[in-house]
Amino acid sequence: MEKREQLYEGKAKRIYRTSLADQYWVEYKDDATAFNGEKKGTITGKGELNNRITAIFFTLLKERGIDNHFIRLLSPTEQLVRKVEIIPLEVVVRNIAAGSLAKRLGMAEGTALPHPVVEFYYKDDALGDPLVNHSHIKVLGVASEDDLAVLERIGLQVNEVLQEYLRERGVILVDFKLEFGRTPEGEILLADEISPDTCRFWDAGTMEKLDKDRFRRDLGNVEEAYREMLKRLGGEAHV
Amino acid sequence: MEKREQLYEGKAKRIYRTSLADQYWVEYKDDATAFNGEKKGTITGKGELNNRITAIFFTLLKERGIDNHFIRLLSPTEQLVRKVEIIPLEVVVRNIAAGSLAKRLGMAEGTALPHPVVEFYYKDDALGDPLVNHSHIKVLGVASEDDLAVLERIGLQVNEVLQEYLRERGVILVDFKLEFGRTPEGEILLADEISPDTCRFWDAGTMEKLDKDRFRRDLGNVEEAYREMLKRLGGEAHV
Repeated sequence: MEKREQLYEGKAKRIYRTSLADQYWVEYKDDATAFNGEKKGTITGKGELNNRITAIFFTLLKERGIDNHFIRLLSPTEQLVRKVEIIPLEVVVRNIAAGSLAKRLGMAEGTALPHPVVEFYYKDDALGDPLVNHSHIKVLGVASEDDLAVLERIGLQVNEVLQEYLRERGVILVDFKLEFGRTPEGEILLADEISPDTCRFWDAGTMEKLDKDRFRRDLGNVEEAYREMLKRLGGEAHV
Repeated sequence: MEKREQLYEGKAKRIYRTSLADQYWVEYKDDATAFNGEKKGTITGKGELNNRITAIFFTLLKERGIDNHFIRLLSPTEQLVRKVEIIPLEVVVRNIAAGSLAKRLGMAEGTALPHPVVEFYYKDDALGDPLVNHSHIKVLGVASEDDLAVLERIGLQVNEVLQEYLRERGVILVDFKLEFGRTPEGEILLADEISPDTCRFWDAGTMEKLDKDRFRRDLGNVEEAYREMLKRLGGEAHV
């Protein structure tokens, strides 16, 4: 299996074709962006940390019966995944009010939600990734009502697995964002990444943030937070 | 039946208690606001025009089997309604992309939607009436999943009735906002108003706007547009 030409460069990853028709090569970058690209920076070692953290989460989820695109690590910053076409929706699951939800509903950050909130955002940089409901998505034509039921169900299952796993490691799963793709066979598959870039993690003892909010809000010790997350998950970085 | 003390003053109406425990006295005002109260003005005659237009629509809906709070006109600017406690959700139904939907989904204003879009907004001035989905509403505790199904169903029924009725009168129903209340018995009842303040009406021939967008966007002839709408509905104003 060989790396072939680059297909796509996103804010945090590059995707390459491989010599296998059904597999992609993913390279995680140290680049960090926030607020729809308005804030830019670099977090040293982030590429490796997110590559490893994502591998751990996706392996765990597969063990718990939640299939996903991850196949195996290729290098400290690279992983092999199944080829999917990404559905342009961000599926956000929340356990605690923070970020845009706290603002939208006028709740203090840190308020425990009585039940998990599931939100869909339309992935479109020019529109600022707007919140959309089921009828908007039907108009956009990017997913059917049945697809949305699958995304919600898997989102809530991932939440159950990760919440418990992280709780045992002294971390509160505040919220997270998932992306899904369609395989060439039309199967919906969990894809993208699960990392401090895409989740809010709070230390259960100190309530310290161990995620990208440290970058968004200039809280300092960003790299250390990501490194701490990998450590909590039993992983080790080589940089 | 007598008018008693004022219970509430909103942007466009005043609500009074009456000598009957289950009925309210509504007075329509000429005051106009837009953009969450940022823009303010007066539209001469609007109180009477909206009072009469709402009465026509609510009477029509009742005839078509869609119950609502309207009882009868009391004066050119006043009507008697059943007492309800308003559910703090705006139920918006859209047939054509305009306003915030055009912006949210990046569609040109005037694009016909392949099917009606239903949206819920949380009525909260301080939060700017944010778009909310079912799980947000569950967290807010203002309506159950069953309630939302009722609101959606009635919203789409109202759309069917009004679209056809207006089409016959040369008017395109672009979108509209409904509010609902709970009766003391717990029944969900269509309430508030249906008028050029709460709908987008376009002349089917000229595509001219016959609604509050004339005020929002400083298009002039605001009062004339409201008056034209009443005329199309077969009503007559005395001012």
